Amino acid sequence: MKYIAVLGSTGSVGTQTMDVLRAKPEHFKLVALAAGQNVQVVLEQIHEFRPALVSVATKEAAEQIKAHAPQGVKIIYGEEGLLEVVTYPQADVVVTAIVGSVGLKPTLAAIEAKKTIALANKETLVTAGKLVMEQARRFNVDILPVDSEHSAIFQCLQGENRKRVEQIIVTASGGSLRHKNRAELEHVTVQEVLNHPNWSMGSKITVDSATMMNKGLEVIEAHWLFDIPFDQIEVLQHDESIIHSMVVFEDSAVMAQLGTPDMKVPIQYALTYPDRYSISGKRLNLAEIGKLHFRKMDFERFPCLRMAYEAGRAGGTVPTVLNAANEVSVMRFLQGDISFLSIEHIISNVLDKHSIIQNPGLEDIHAADLWARELALSMS
Amino acid sequence: MKYIAVLGSTGSVGTQTMDVLRAKPEHFKLVALAAGQNVQVVLEQIHEFRPALVSVATKEAAEQIKAHAPQGVKIIYGEEGLLEVVTYPQADVVVTAIVGSVGLKPTLAAIEAKKTIALANKETLVTAGKLVMEQARRFNVDILPVDSEHSAIFQCLQGENRKRVEQIIVTASGGSLRHKNRAELEHVTVQEVLNHPNWSMGSKITVDSATMMNKGLEVIEAHWLFDIPFDQIEVLQHDESIIHSMVVFEDSAVMAQLGTPDMKVPIQYALTYPDRYSISGKRLNLAEIGKLHFRKMDFERFPCLRMAYEAGRAGGTVPTVLNAANEVSVMRFLQGDISFLSIEHIISNVLDKHSIIQNPGLEDIHAADLWARELALSMS
Repeated sequence: MKYIAVLGSTGSVGTQTMDVLRAKPEHFKLVALAAGQNVQVVLEQIHEFRPALVSVATKEAAEQIKAHAPQGVKIIYGEEGLLEVVTYPQADVVVTAIVGSVGLKPTLAAIEAKKTIALANKETLVTAGKLVMEQARRFNVDILPVDSEHSAIFQCLQGENRKRVEQIIVTASGGSLRHKNRAELEHVTVQEVLNHPNWSMGSKITVDSATMMNKGLEVIEAHWLFDIPFDQIEVLQHDESIIHSMVVFEDSAVMAQLGTPDMKVPIQYALTYPDRYSISGKRLNLAEIGKLHFRKMDFERFPCLRMAYEAGRAGGTVPTVLNAANEVSVMRFLQGDISFLSIEHIISNVLDKHSIIQNPGLEDIHAADLWARELALSMS
Repeated sequence: MKYIAVLGSTGSVGTQTMDVLRAKPEHFKLVALAAGQNVQVVLEQIHEFRPALVSVATKEAAEQIKAHAPQGVKIIYGEEGLLEVVTYPQADVVVTAIVGSVGLKPTLAAIEAKKTIALANKETLVTAGKLVMEQARRFNVDILPVDSEHSAIFQCLQGENRKRVEQIIVTASGGSLRHKNRAELEHVTVQEVLNHPNWSMGSKITVDSATMMNKGLEVIEAHWLFDIPFDQIEVLQHDESIIHSMVVFEDSAVMAQLGTPDMKVPIQYALTYPDRYSISGKRLNLAEIGKLHFRKMDFERFPCLRMAYEAGRAGGTVPTVLNAANEVSVMRFLQGDISFLSIEHIISNVLDKHSIIQNPGLEDIHAADLWARELALSMS
């Protein structure tokens, strides 16, 4: 039996994690969860999984839940609550399914508590990859990727000598606007952007897919997770999202992981690694699909990806700023406050104004994150 | 340093094995080789690699070679010579790059001498898979596949729990006649058949690719190598031969190995396993290729594949007979003695006349092989 804590239990990855746990009650036990303010869903999860510890964002939400929760479930709230969930003594694995660099502090706390991390919160590695990986090495903690691309790469590396890796190829569907040219991007609506062709995901990551910033964040995440230089990470456009990513070895052999787009597979793999448990349902049928398409990535069409590579290569606080400016811009776009193309303009302008700090500590990262957020909020 | 013996050094896989050894003199040393009657090429290999022991098919060839070989190279011949090569004390790995079930006896001898087998001789596993695998287990010997498909599957299984394998998907290019329908097969010439679209291979395997018998032999080979039932082995048509084969796991994840079609990669992998050494040269460029195509296998179009599945499922001496009838028919086709479609007719007729022996010993296998050869030779 594996004891699981989930951070962000009501989001897209969070609810799909619940699907995984629900299907295998003989293998998994949810012991703690943290969520925002979705009282209704949290209550359903409490009644179904009976975790011992539940944390929500606010005191009000906690009180609403307390009124309806069964006896014996401890309900807490706020940042302290979050930290109590990720360090809950009985938990073996913490699934970090929270969105944004707000995941950094609890992830570090979970590592220090020697929890295995099932990492679905890529922003944490983008904003402070060096610190997080150093901490994981220090506490001898596994960071297992949940993102489908990184899970694919991780699966391709099993049984291999990592010194023989020549290149990582991250595939990209191109997102919801891939058939539009730059001119056509001027007036796209939130609704058009949220209509992703292959994956069912949260709104922030769906916007990130349309700007290709998601792939940029993934490149930076891959750099840290797999300890590989940016020059050895390539992004390949692949419309169907069937090949989830690939690893090229020095002997020219390429290993790939494929499947129908279903987040439950990488989520469960992170929980069962190095073993696999069965998942029923649809199998990949390549004969039915008929063709897989591949195209060279167009960095002119997708400047956010170019900016992410540049930020990753610059290092220091630059990826922190990239990520914070992106988080704020995407939120503003989703709220109808700015246009789609303003996302990239704001990020670019914030990056231009930033003075890099090399080898930042946690305080430097918080300061850079805050500075970038404030600037991104004020720009138009 | 790994010490290598090569069986069939002048054939297609044999000469490509020499390419691999030539590129890595710091890792590989050729100590023994066996070949047929190609005196010229054997002499070149002797002068280049200075093996200690060389065996050829006939006394005449041996004498011709002796006259020109440098001092200190022992030249022998015939079946005894073959057996001395595969059991040569200094050799760690024996590459069985010989074509046909003639490879069975030396492969068994190599296993008993506790040599690691780099198996490029699929007919050995088709004709006597059960015996060979039992022997390998008894002597605790690794049988490492050299066929690109089986090497791909083997690579996909690294670091995995083999109990979680749900299906093996062997890809098939369709061979040189894939764009012809059954009616158009009536009058194809040897030259048309030998013009394989993707792979540079010997003539026997190129004909086998056109009849799809090659894929049938590979299915039987996979059954024995990976201990997997025939119902869990699927053949998928894939024109470009880029995905070399795949493994589906119980969690629905699919692992695949890809690459440009180059036999040097699986040959070297068998020699360096579980590590990989660098190979310079062309890398897979999926953006350049653009599209990969997949189609359901058509068992009406390719009856040899259907016969191979049936023979594999029947077991006993049936695969032995399938293989022997195929070897003879292909030889006869290459000699201009029978038409292309006669290959499948003769195999089918020989199979119809065979009385299966279940759990055959080595003598039963030899007898069935001989019986099938004689019958296949006499049919028209």
